[in-house]
Amino acid sequence: MQEKLFSIGIDIGGTNTSLGLVDLNGKILAEAYLNTRQFNHPDDFIEGIKEKLSPIIQQFGKDKIVGIGIGAPNGNYYSGNIELAANLPWKGVIHLKKKMEKALALPTTLTNDANAAAIGEMIYGVAKGVQDFIMVTLGTGVGSGFVANGKLIYGNDGFAGELGHVIAVREGRPCGCGRRGCLEAYASATGIVTTAMEFLQQEEKKMDVAIPKDFLVDVWRKNKTVTSKDIFTAAKVKDPLAFEIFKFTGDILGQTLADMVVITSPQLIVLFGGLSLAGDLLILPTKKSMEKNLLSIFKNKVSIVPSHLNHRNAAILGASSLVFQQKLS
Amino acid sequence: MQEKLFSIGIDIGGTNTSLGLVDLNGKILAEAYLNTRQFNHPDDFIEGIKEKLSPIIQQFGKDKIVGIGIGAPNGNYYSGNIELAANLPWKGVIHLKKKMEKALALPTTLTNDANAAAIGEMIYGVAKGVQDFIMVTLGTGVGSGFVANGKLIYGNDGFAGELGHVIAVREGRPCGCGRRGCLEAYASATGIVTTAMEFLQQEEKKMDVAIPKDFLVDVWRKNKTVTSKDIFTAAKVKDPLAFEIFKFTGDILGQTLADMVVITSPQLIVLFGGLSLAGDLLILPTKKSMEKNLLSIFKNKVSIVPSHLNHRNAAILGASSLVFQQKLS
Repeated sequence: MQEKLFSIGIDIGGTNTSLGLVDLNGKILAEAYLNTRQFNHPDDFIEGIKEKLSPIIQQFGKDKIVGIGIGAPNGNYYSGNIELAANLPWKGVIHLKKKMEKALALPTTLTNDANAAAIGEMIYGVAKGVQDFIMVTLGTGVGSGFVANGKLIYGNDGFAGELGHVIAVREGRPCGCGRRGCLEAYASATGIVTTAMEFLQQEEKKMDVAIPKDFLVDVWRKNKTVTSKDIFTAAKVKDPLAFEIFKFTGDILGQTLADMVVITSPQLIVLFGGLSLAGDLLILPTKKSMEKNLLSIFKNKVSIVPSHLNHRNAAILGASSLVFQQKLS
Repeated sequence: MQEKLFSIGIDIGGTNTSLGLVDLNGKILAEAYLNTRQFNHPDDFIEGIKEKLSPIIQQFGKDKIVGIGIGAPNGNYYSGNIELAANLPWKGVIHLKKKMEKALALPTTLTNDANAAAIGEMIYGVAKGVQDFIMVTLGTGVGSGFVANGKLIYGNDGFAGELGHVIAVREGRPCGCGRRGCLEAYASATGIVTTAMEFLQQEEKKMDVAIPKDFLVDVWRKNKTVTSKDIFTAAKVKDPLAFEIFKFTGDILGQTLADMVVITSPQLIVLFGGLSLAGDLLILPTKKSMEKNLLSIFKNKVSIVPSHLNHRNAAILGASSLVFQQKLS
């Protein structure tokens, strides 16, 4: 019988950091949370993590813990550093792996959040046993992890898998990265809000004539803005504009995925993150657009499925699985 | 000392088939050629190969030959079949691996020509020892082989790496695959001729006024068409239109490569095939366009280099290396 082993997963987000102790079956046995923004310096942040982790490590036994896996924006697998992450409160290059290993004396592995999610999906989720798949995280931004031959592609510099920065619309919308037309500018929570605002501004021009009474228009008239949650709610009450917004988003996401399929020929595309909670509202138009745009030899071969992992736990599982993946491979 | 071992490489092209016996250092010790089109049935073709190979196998000793590697259009690594290859004289699915193993009693490996070239480059060429690179073959069509974590990506169905069918220009030129705007419609030998014809037709509208006397215009006036060779020759005599054509082609190729770099983060992009013989004429505008379009974290990290393998031998080497790669990995 396999000895009972554990790993620690830490998911560092711009607002919250979640940490947990996980067993080989993906069961979270202890967890804790920190407010990322309350730490002005990465050293204080690591001290904060240490405070939370120490009692957990003591309880389960340090010799039973194989290591710490961390998923973080711009986390680099090779260097173990967080490099120039726009959404974190600390600037520049943070030598996180080195600092963590010094603070906690446990082997530490770092990667970006989308890569961690991909490995989590490969070990515990719908991609279990799948050799070739693409993990797409649709959150505030768009991230991805590409798995080929059963291994995550880190690439030459550790930054591979930036699907959010493939140009989906040549000379399209401005993106946070400084370029134009990136997938992230369309298929993220912020992208879908931009789409809604564009559509609503077009509606406004017609309003004096048509005066539609739909949900989103009402919200917009009241607040002069809408949120991604408003768009979800509008779709639930069958606002036609909300369906149009999801169709537009799915069209663009599907086109870009069709271009990715010819490169890595995945068995599966897994969607994860806030926007993926829209489920079929997003997946159906995405799938339709992908199939329409696919090179014929790939048609009807690639599934698009939502992650089945609990969204709150998935980040911890993904990060913790980094360690198990290394140990078991 | 390592025993002297050999492998046989066969490159099946629409017009010619080349075969050769190769040692571990990539030295071709015997070779032969067939006219692919003279065989009406794949069984006759295999008989033809057997006739050419038998004396070579006898000379070097069957027990010293580790196997046969074949690169062919639409060759599938997993199934060992050629599936629906538009450029070959035989239709449908050809069980090539099975038939070859029966005919010659040597283990046989099949893949598509661009994948074979990628492995050849990894074993004998500029990508020796490189874990992450993209091989791009710019011939009549555009093919590619993506290598990540030191392994070629075959994908779930064995057809991965179809860079030629990434959409470079949304709703662009018609492509042979039935869709529009594929990279192949722009960055292949046929694509560059289409570009030249488009440019020349635009020139014609201005001709009554300007009457340019440049090389390509002259060829076109005489023949009402141009070839890719004419475009090369025109560039050599410094015809400005030829430079414009290469710049246009490099712009589009560079844009598409920028989108690929964010996915697999290669150390190197290797160009191979007829169009790559244009060298800096094509590489400089491609590199410039790729850098301009790259997400900033990837800027100035990725080299674009021409293959250094002799073009006549490279196909045999690539195919033969399929066998060595399997044996040595």
